[in-house]
Amino acid sequence: MSHNLLKGKKGIIFGALNDMSIAWKVAERCVEEGATVSLSNTPFAIRMGNTEELAEKLNAKLIPADATKVEELEQVFDESMQAMGGKIDFMLHSIGMSPNVRKKRTYDDLDYHMLNQTLDISAISFHKMLQVAYKKDAINEWGSVVALTYGAAHRTMYGYNDMADAKAMLESIARSFGYIYGRKRSVRINTISQSPTLTTAGSGIKGFDSLMDFSERMSPLGNATAAECADYCITLFSDLTKKVTMQNLFHDGGYSSMGMSYRAMEQYIKSFEGIKDEDGNVIYG
Amino acid sequence: MSHNLLKGKKGIIFGALNDMSIAWKVAERCVEEGATVSLSNTPFAIRMGNTEELAEKLNAKLIPADATKVEELEQVFDESMQAMGGKIDFMLHSIGMSPNVRKKRTYDDLDYHMLNQTLDISAISFHKMLQVAYKKDAINEWGSVVALTYGAAHRTMYGYNDMADAKAMLESIARSFGYIYGRKRSVRINTISQSPTLTTAGSGIKGFDSLMDFSERMSPLGNATAAECADYCITLFSDLTKKVTMQNLFHDGGYSSMGMSYRAMEQYIKSFEGIKDEDGNVIYG
Amino acid sequence: MSHNLLKGKKGIIFGALNDMSIAWKVAERCVEEGATVSLSNTPFAIRMGNTEELAEKLNAKLIPADATKVEELEQVFDESMQAMGGKIDFMLHSIGMSPNVRKKRTYDDLDYHMLNQTLDISAISFHKMLQVAYKKDAINEWGSVVALTYGAAHRTMYGYNDMADAKAMLESIARSFGYIYGRKRSVRINTISQSPTLTTAGSGIKGFDSLMDFSERMSPLGNATAAECADYCITLFSDLTKKVTMQNLFHDGGYSSMGMSYRAMEQYIKSFEGIKDEDGNVIYG
Amino acid sequence: MSHNLLKGKKGIIFGALNDMSIAWKVAERCVEEGATVSLSNTPFAIRMGNTEELAEKLNAKLIPADATKVEELEQVFDESMQAMGGKIDFMLHSIGMSPNVRKKRTYDDLDYHMLNQTLDISAISFHKMLQVAYKKDAINEWGSVVALTYGAAHRTMYGYNDMADAKAMLESIARSFGYIYGRKRSVRINTISQSPTLTTAGSGIKGFDSLMDFSERMSPLGNATAAECADYCITLFSDLTKKVTMQNLFHDGGYSSMGMSYRAMEQYIKSFEGIKDEDGNVIYG
Repeated sequence: MSHNLLKGKKGIIFGALNDMSIAWKVAERCVEEGATVSLSNTPFAIRMGNTEELAEKLNAKLIPADATKVEELEQVFDESMQAMGGKIDFMLHSIGMSPNVRKKRTYDDLDYHMLNQTLDISAISFHKMLQVAYKKDAINEWGSVVALTYGAAHRTMYGYNDMADAKAMLESIARSFGYIYGRKRSVRINTISQSPTLTTAGSGIKGFDSLMDFSERMSPLGNATAAECADYCITLFSDLTKKVTMQNLFHDGGYSSMGMSYRAMEQYIKSFEGIKDEDGNVIYG
Repeated sequence: MSHNLLKGKKGIIFGALNDMSIAWKVAERCVEEGATVSLSNTPFAIRMGNTEELAEKLNAKLIPADATKVEELEQVFDESMQAMGGKIDFMLHSIGMSPNVRKKRTYDDLDYHMLNQTLDISAISFHKMLQVAYKKDAINEWGSVVALTYGAAHRTMYGYNDMADAKAMLESIARSFGYIYGRKRSVRINTISQSPTLTTAGSGIKGFDSLMDFSERMSPLGNATAAECADYCITLFSDLTKKVTMQNLFHDGGYSSMGMSYRAMEQYIKSFEGIKDEDGNVIYG
Repeated sequence: MSHNLLKGKKGIIFGALNDMSIAWKVAERCVEEGATVSLSNTPFAIRMGNTEELAEKLNAKLIPADATKVEELEQVFDESMQAMGGKIDFMLHSIGMSPNVRKKRTYDDLDYHMLNQTLDISAISFHKMLQVAYKKDAINEWGSVVALTYGAAHRTMYGYNDMADAKAMLESIARSFGYIYGRKRSVRINTISQSPTLTTAGSGIKGFDSLMDFSERMSPLGNATAAECADYCITLFSDLTKKVTMQNLFHDGGYSSMGMSYRAMEQYIKSFEGIKDEDGNVIYG
Repeated sequence: MSHNLLKGKKGIIFGALNDMSIAWKVAERCVEEGATVSLSNTPFAIRMGNTEELAEKLNAKLIPADATKVEELEQVFDESMQAMGGKIDFMLHSIGMSPNVRKKRTYDDLDYHMLNQTLDISAISFHKMLQVAYKKDAINEWGSVVALTYGAAHRTMYGYNDMADAKAMLESIARSFGYIYGRKRSVRINTISQSPTLTTAGSGIKGFDSLMDFSERMSPLGNATAAECADYCITLFSDLTKKVTMQNLFHDGGYSSMGMSYRAMEQYIKSFEGIKDEDGNVIYG
């Protein structure tokens, strides 16, 4: 159901691959709420995914671009403003990739060229986007920018590898640029720290199923879905959150504030079944 | 402008005193967004303030109650549900008072009976409210509860005194009960940590003007107003934030993520004018 | 092995019950490091536990006192200073108890009289201790105060109940009083957030064994023991940490900074054994 | 005064430039406490500073190396182990530099090649150091690693620029590698977040004097000095803190937990003197 929360607003959505992508859901919901959007992703992702289909459906300009290249980002802003007829009001950064993870290089055996790529793609691209927008004065006053992040930026998850460091840097960029963009143009910048989500990106992580099960049982409200994340983005793009900036906002059914839930511990205890001493007491490792 | 974000929803607003109160603005905005509300405050506050006027304007049931008394809270929920014809969907806790602050007892000379009152009024009342609601099953599934807090819960502000400890406890109650209420009834509970705000309560704090000036200059987007806080509450009461729970959400123009802004430091430096050595260098204390 | 880190220093240790107590180990280590200490606990705890034995062993004055009573705390400081011949240099608060937990009142069914007791015993006692010390000017310049807390103050643990709120308040008191005591007398105040520890208090918590197993597997260095906590306290009481104050310091083998470890997830996955679909894939709940 | 806390231990200290450097003081204190150390810095820094003098004084091997180059770091570990006759027990990373800051490129006009250098020098060098040590198995069990960081990693400081993002990444590396190095070899890794300190590096930051004055007045115990930081490092390198890992530890006289002190506000208010309305009330901006 639409509330026309973004009526007349314009935005750019980076990172929609297919209908499992959070960025995909965000784009759909923005349009539903009255916004016009343009979409951007790498040429490779556009070939592999269904972004063209989304663009057609949403009547959105699709602009292929490598977000690590300043010139290509400049084009995204230029073409977006031209297509939509003016400055933009909101922007979503949903971009992340680690060649080290892909190539199964563990964190104690990182390839440093790949680490640079991880940072460039997953964190520095956000700064480039903001700097390009800032120099072009491409975002209207009281505009709103959101980047997606993950809790591993604060608490280490096995297997998340150098993406944790990239996300920590991403969140720092949101603060650093949030200060500059806020005081100069009243633009706010926040990150959303989302539950593990079954996207094409998420499913690449080792033991992702069990992790999702654990976090589902830990979170009082269960894991947050991509669709729910899109709803949350709408509120952050709307005029109702004008003074929220430089924040990392957990959207995770409560997971980040949980130490241990009864449901998760109940399941954990089952793992010891059969491992009991002669008096029937569970033997812990 | 209304977006009908709370259409058909029912809520209880605790703590509206006069039109400077955040709770007052929240009540107004809720009704604007299509909700029905009931209001509650202490009999004393109702006599001193203008809550009756607000109740009339919003066509809201006004229920006098001391939020430290379980029986009176029970009545608030009973009468609210009766007046509005069913369970509620949202609730605001905007209650806080320190007799130690009022009586100018400093933090190294607290009266412990007064400290108990501070805690009872400012923190435990929130638990009582939630426990009463929970036992009566008075909140619909996916309902939303918000309590107002202040940054001093995390970083000490001179003069805020035992209210800091009360707010730290309030935020903990939001987490502790957020777990229970979440897993059992899918109700979410959050706190909003708001900029210093010129309310009747706020203005009682020592050196409040200079504090507001400093935080205005520190915050890239400036201090958040009571009206803006009301807007933010609307998003948290709406169905767009269903998976946000157990969080402390800063609504402060970026203040909480600032270490030092240029504008604040520029002003600070002025305080040394005239205190220069013979070479014209500022002499720092 | 002693390093004479506390040579010539005097301290008061609150809360040693028996040789499983963290406070017990701290007292022993302090003396080993050259300090003189006095001990205090409730008359009831002294009857139930072995504090007298410890006092004898350490040649320490044992002063029975209810830490919720200002007059009795005054006596602890008076007698301690008299026994040790001067002001003290350090102090440990290791006191906590929840009648609600004892009486198996769940968090959605708290008895509020008992909640007041939980707060009074587990948090406000710390303020009273500090206020009494401050008024008597009983702590030397650059003295050091530590209180023990637990991670549930930040992230909810099922079953920890109203102790979470009390610990959140305790940590806030450390900050609030740390400001006052720091600027006036250069005394520092910190809390240590310790791993779950097999003490008489710890073992009362529901499902404590499994919790310890989980946190052991989550923590890269394993759970911290009571003896290791005592070592850590020594550093905080020593002159090597003079500028550390108002901090909550995690002493937990890394647990607080872990999102998920491989070892814990490996164990968790075992809980699903036998619950597989026809293709041999684990079925998650 | 020595406590022989590091008796028989060996360590590597990166980043001592001159006697204002924190790393310099740390090296001195380590030796005082019974350790043997080796020193490393870039050839350029060695030419500009007095590291050779320190090496001579401490009878320490000085190994010139660019910490962004894996091969040179390998040499540092090889030569250190050879010179000291075995694996090391502790290590200090005190390295940071931003070409963007040096070239006065503001954060909204970063040169991305320079940003890569900032990250490489100030953050990735830490990972390289750890990975090299790990692959060579160069750190004894229960060894301890510390990196120096700054509060701007969490709360934006004007003028600190891309160093904030680098420090955020540095702290993340400490956590990420702390997990790996902890579970495999029981080595702990922490960062110390130090007060602004008058070092050669610190004094390059815009308005550093006023910043230090402000933080001096905000911190209940005043700013922490380089010498005090060295003392703190000793405790972290000693066997008394074996279970502290993956933590960011504030060493700042309480600054990080202060929202506003009376002393700082008192000074701030002076900045408005003379700016009063006709009734003598201060006019705020």
